[in-house]
Amino acid sequence: MIGSGFMGSAHSQGWRVAPRFFDLPRSPEMAVLVGRDAGRAEAAASKWGWAETSTDWRSTVERDDVDIIDIVTPGDSHAEIAIAALRAGKHVLCEKPLANTVAEAEAMADAAEQAAANGVVAMVGFTYRRVPAATFARDLVAAGRLGAIRQIRAAYRQDWLADSDGPMTWRLDKERAGSGALGDIGAHAIDLAEFITGLRLERVAGTLETIVSERPLLGEGIGLSGTASTERGQVTVDDVALFQGRFTAPDGGGFAPLGSFEATRFATGRKNALTIEISGETGAIAFDLERLNELQFFDATVPATEQGFRTIFVTEPEHPYLAPWWPAGHMLGYEHGFSHQVVDLIDAIAGTGEASPSFGDGLHVQRVLDAVGRSSNADGVWTPVH
Amino acid sequence: MIGSGFMGSAHSQGWRVAPRFFDLPRSPEMAVLVGRDAGRAEAAASKWGWAETSTDWRSTVERDDVDIIDIVTPGDSHAEIAIAALRAGKHVLCEKPLANTVAEAEAMADAAEQAAANGVVAMVGFTYRRVPAATFARDLVAAGRLGAIRQIRAAYRQDWLADSDGPMTWRLDKERAGSGALGDIGAHAIDLAEFITGLRLERVAGTLETIVSERPLLGEGIGLSGTASTERGQVTVDDVALFQGRFTAPDGGGFAPLGSFEATRFATGRKNALTIEISGETGAIAFDLERLNELQFFDATVPATEQGFRTIFVTEPEHPYLAPWWPAGHMLGYEHGFSHQVVDLIDAIAGTGEASPSFGDGLHVQRVLDAVGRSSNADGVWTPVH
Amino acid sequence: MIGSGFMGSAHSQGWRVAPRFFDLPRSPEMAVLVGRDAGRAEAAASKWGWAETSTDWRSTVERDDVDIIDIVTPGDSHAEIAIAALRAGKHVLCEKPLANTVAEAEAMADAAEQAAANGVVAMVGFTYRRVPAATFARDLVAAGRLGAIRQIRAAYRQDWLADSDGPMTWRLDKERAGSGALGDIGAHAIDLAEFITGLRLERVAGTLETIVSERPLLGEGIGLSGTASTERGQVTVDDVALFQGRFTAPDGGGFAPLGSFEATRFATGRKNALTIEISGETGAIAFDLERLNELQFFDATVPATEQGFRTIFVTEPEHPYLAPWWPAGHMLGYEHGFSHQVVDLIDAIAGTGEASPSFGDGLHVQRVLDAVGRSSNADGVWTPVH
Amino acid sequence: MIGSGFMGSAHSQGWRVAPRFFDLPRSPEMAVLVGRDAGRAEAAASKWGWAETSTDWRSTVERDDVDIIDIVTPGDSHAEIAIAALRAGKHVLCEKPLANTVAEAEAMADAAEQAAANGVVAMVGFTYRRVPAATFARDLVAAGRLGAIRQIRAAYRQDWLADSDGPMTWRLDKERAGSGALGDIGAHAIDLAEFITGLRLERVAGTLETIVSERPLLGEGIGLSGTASTERGQVTVDDVALFQGRFTAPDGGGFAPLGSFEATRFATGRKNALTIEISGETGAIAFDLERLNELQFFDATVPATEQGFRTIFVTEPEHPYLAPWWPAGHMLGYEHGFSHQVVDLIDAIAGTGEASPSFGDGLHVQRVLDAVGRSSNADGVWTPVH
Repeated sequence: MIGSGFMGSAHSQGWRVAPRFFDLPRSPEMAVLVGRDAGRAEAAASKWGWAETSTDWRSTVERDDVDIIDIVTPGDSHAEIAIAALRAGKHVLCEKPLANTVAEAEAMADAAEQAAANGVVAMVGFTYRRVPAATFARDLVAAGRLGAIRQIRAAYRQDWLADSDGPMTWRLDKERAGSGALGDIGAHAIDLAEFITGLRLERVAGTLETIVSERPLLGEGIGLSGTASTERGQVTVDDVALFQGRFTAPDGGGFAPLGSFEATRFATGRKNALTIEISGETGAIAFDLERLNELQFFDATVPATEQGFRTIFVTEPEHPYLAPWWPAGHMLGYEHGFSHQVVDLIDAIAGTGEASPSFGDGLHVQRVLDAVGRSSNADGVWTPVH
Repeated sequence: MIGSGFMGSAHSQGWRVAPRFFDLPRSPEMAVLVGRDAGRAEAAASKWGWAETSTDWRSTVERDDVDIIDIVTPGDSHAEIAIAALRAGKHVLCEKPLANTVAEAEAMADAAEQAAANGVVAMVGFTYRRVPAATFARDLVAAGRLGAIRQIRAAYRQDWLADSDGPMTWRLDKERAGSGALGDIGAHAIDLAEFITGLRLERVAGTLETIVSERPLLGEGIGLSGTASTERGQVTVDDVALFQGRFTAPDGGGFAPLGSFEATRFATGRKNALTIEISGETGAIAFDLERLNELQFFDATVPATEQGFRTIFVTEPEHPYLAPWWPAGHMLGYEHGFSHQVVDLIDAIAGTGEASPSFGDGLHVQRVLDAVGRSSNADGVWTPVH
Repeated sequence: MIGSGFMGSAHSQGWRVAPRFFDLPRSPEMAVLVGRDAGRAEAAASKWGWAETSTDWRSTVERDDVDIIDIVTPGDSHAEIAIAALRAGKHVLCEKPLANTVAEAEAMADAAEQAAANGVVAMVGFTYRRVPAATFARDLVAAGRLGAIRQIRAAYRQDWLADSDGPMTWRLDKERAGSGALGDIGAHAIDLAEFITGLRLERVAGTLETIVSERPLLGEGIGLSGTASTERGQVTVDDVALFQGRFTAPDGGGFAPLGSFEATRFATGRKNALTIEISGETGAIAFDLERLNELQFFDATVPATEQGFRTIFVTEPEHPYLAPWWPAGHMLGYEHGFSHQVVDLIDAIAGTGEASPSFGDGLHVQRVLDAVGRSSNADGVWTPVH
Repeated sequence: MIGSGFMGSAHSQGWRVAPRFFDLPRSPEMAVLVGRDAGRAEAAASKWGWAETSTDWRSTVERDDVDIIDIVTPGDSHAEIAIAALRAGKHVLCEKPLANTVAEAEAMADAAEQAAANGVVAMVGFTYRRVPAATFARDLVAAGRLGAIRQIRAAYRQDWLADSDGPMTWRLDKERAGSGALGDIGAHAIDLAEFITGLRLERVAGTLETIVSERPLLGEGIGLSGTASTERGQVTVDDVALFQGRFTAPDGGGFAPLGSFEATRFATGRKNALTIEISGETGAIAFDLERLNELQFFDATVPATEQGFRTIFVTEPEHPYLAPWWPAGHMLGYEHGFSHQVVDLIDAIAGTGEASPSFGDGLHVQRVLDAVGRSSNADGVWTPVH
């Protein structure tokens, strides 16, 4: 695993826990943790249970006894590491967004395609697909329970920048993060909308905004944020993104669904509200990551007097990923998606499953992000995704 | 009252009930109901309790014994009737949207301004302002409980056109209705957002869409819809509208808040969901007309461990409009807003209150609707409201 | 109408509004308002729209031009008035609880039975049966959608006595009110549980409690409460009641369902929370008067993955009582039940409907209240209802 | 760890994960898994990560290299194992309920008290205390935010026996399980109510019931249930328990709060709904394990117009147990309580925390269960807890 920040802890939990509940076709071992700072890497490896540490990702991706490279660094280093690892014949799991630019993402997708010819697997880490309620939502749509889809609303709302005096972090620095709310959390909303519906965005029209453009520099980092220093710095990324989208029309014609999207750090009171609502001709679903064990489903085919959004607790053994966990009604948390990601990756490596989302999927999301930026620069005009 | 359709029933309930609960400075009498069809007018008058009927609105607005003209016809006749009534010195209550075009609305606002010089009152019927929870939301914002406002999300979602075979009504005919989802329900979302925040939209960028463009003609009308005939007709208005907006910056500078808006008839499972969520630096509010007695309020100034959206039942005697009704926790319904509208209108006429929303407010909403249409025609580009 | 307090206002609204929306087989006129205090009666009559007033209920119930007597006085006068009215051949609507004692209620039920032979109708005012969601719940149960019923939980929770210094009212005086939380609001919970399930309580085991036994006397009355005077008085009724119940077994044998009941004035934060949840072998329903337009329905016969409580907005034209009101999704309030009560009463009088709940039903509720009191006095032991 | 059933998996996850997130004063090692069946024990140990297995708990509790005994067997073996382990000087964590009888629980509490003199720690596994929202509820009560407590409602509702043809398991066999819904899930409701309020039940009045008394025998076990065989067996435990309780009066006098309790397997649609609502003079809280990251808090000391139940997401770093986990708004699941239990146990062993709930607490719960049984046998009469 390359990286020792917050996402490293989550990925480590996935590697640690997945084999204890799921019957995997391969047994992963937590071999090497790579970090730029030797001390921090050692502390993290000891805490999280990695056998060794290294400060050199280049030599690590070449090691014969390493089969999988898990990349959890900021986006500016994804391309270089992932391409080197794929060329070395290693399977790669790369955190989202795939890269900071479309060009990098294209190079990565190319490398993944070449590596696939040799049975090498590349996967991008949109873990929210693997929240069982989201996967089940996809299943309902795929089974035609919503009928023709008309509208998709996806938003990722947080409030951790609502305080104008909240400090800078690397996520607010365009060099490191590539983009702000759009790329960090909006990317999840885009991927989830496309995953659940099986559709792709073709055109977008949107606005990027930086509501608070100057903030105190970070003193000491704590979690995703930290204490404020007395100096101030410039926020160089968007902290709110709003856009509309037009999805592909269904095969055989019909209405090309409309989307509306929001990614924001200023939704006071919303802590981690990745929400999606999909309206179809015969049904609708609504999901909120703040109640991640629940899926709202409206079935418009039952008698009018009995219609209503029903709150399905997606915790039955028949639900996706659920059987190995707890009895029905015993709730899962944020981190379980990382175990499910390990399950799917190992299955793909063993040939018993598909590598999804692929780097190609990650590239597509990157192109949507790019198109939103171009639209914003062009006064909001509808802009093709390419 | 001019008009005998669905809104006539609601307005009649307001006139009938308001004096039985509120102490009004004037005692309204339900004098004349005007309808084009004598039989229907008489049936409606008898049902709703109007003393007389007429088929001639022109002579009615001239009658000496009539002081107030309440216009509940479709939008294409608002301008002519309202202007005639105002010129005749009658106070006017006009259903929303004020008119079908900006030009008509301007003429109406002019007429209202001239009439005001003679103490004549003109008010436009955005009744949702008078849902106590909405009024109380306005009070919280005005008291600074949300701090600087950053984002406003307003949507009006219904699903009564989700069925592609649902029949035509006059609301889907551009000649009669002026616009579709945008003008009929989006206008409420716009007015409510501006009312609660005290801000005005200055620029918009949006998209109008007709998802289902051909429908069966209406057989027999029932409520807002009816049975289908075998012939089909063209839907000439939008049935979905999505737009972003930029509000006025606060006095003294600061961030000009961003808005996102939706009006749709295709939100499967949403029956009458006028929702609004406002994010401020120190608080947030959320409202949903489907739970109209409730206001969600998030106070970011209490300790972090105790923060959370609280569900305020806006039914305390200290809440707006509530004291004359029932004990706390006894819920109000849709129609109570029409009583509150009568209270406010009578207060304005008696000089003990202000006529709000004014025709000027209605004109402004009309200009926003127009700007959204222009933006949609210009491929979604940001477009000034003027 | 006999009585001029809070319930008089609600009943008046029913008489006033019902004919304006429903097609009634008879046209009620609001003739005489009777009150002990002539001035208060006149003020109320003027406000609420009654044509005349009287201070003498005895002569009023004898008047030839009066057909219906609506009793909204405190419980201690119900029996005398109702029996006199029935003997005079008048139809009677009597507020709940039917009486303050079982003996009175028995006399009333006898009188009603005798009067029925002459076509005279007697009905008791459990209006919450006529909240459309409650009526629809009854319909679902009657249609077998819940299968065999196992458990019923009904509670009526308010918090208006939570403040120990809240003042006395007549509702806290045993002489006037008969009982406290049990008779005033617990009676609603009992009736609603029996109405929805079609079952009757046969045995109960419970506890009556007075949490705050001394309070300031009432200064000036406001709504259901008022300001405090400096003197203090004794609360002579229960302010909390908890009991379990055993219902009749279904016809043909099977499990006799268990009930659990609560009536309280001390449920801090609960304003008017009449809640009921019924668990059956194949389904469940849950209702909360604080969201009175909604019914929660769980259908255990759909596939396990799709099961969930669904929130049905009981506002469709096919729902009970709904067609004459507003379009789907336009919410009703507390007072609409009083219009529905008028509709059902007039239907019963015209012979086009049944008088329900009858005085016999009211007597049964009275016997349950009595049995709870006897159980409480006998240290909580199971006690038959008789 | 003694036992290899469902709870073994949950405890193992606690032992595995706690050290990876929390800084513990001691480093636990997962040494030996003991099971009656050698094959099953080995499979479980391999799956869950225990170093060794044994089929002999007696020799295991004597091993010098074992410091802690974690008992996750059915209740009939708790006493024997725990007492032996304590006598051998081992710290003991014992699943709830502490034992199947009061006599056993007394012996265990005695053994724990004696062992405590030697610095040996004994703790009983009421893990739901360690759901952060429940711990935080306790903190709010302890800080006086609810004022004088009046009423406590606690219920644990499941529906896994709602199907009359659902098969037998050991949990329905009195020999193995001691009691049914009451001891298995009602015990949690009792402990949680006492934990959050800091009060103890002194008297109870209740009813135990077996709604479905004959069921198919278990074919193959799956999770908490399994497939049905064609033979049928007798359910020898309660499957529903309802009772009222009287808590200790507060120090210095005042009202002794009333409780109402329910434990059921027949609450159709409720999967794992451990709910509690506490009404105090100045505030209230409500919790539902089905939304375990949330606490509802009503503060009656803010202005009446701003009062409402607020939904606190108990995921802030300042909330109990939260800091080492994820950023705010990233949800925890069912199993996290088992990590928190390990943290608290290790802290108690290291002397940096208190062993809570103690075996004495477990004994008290056992006495409440016993008193409910005695009351049920005595026709529901109020019965002292002793």
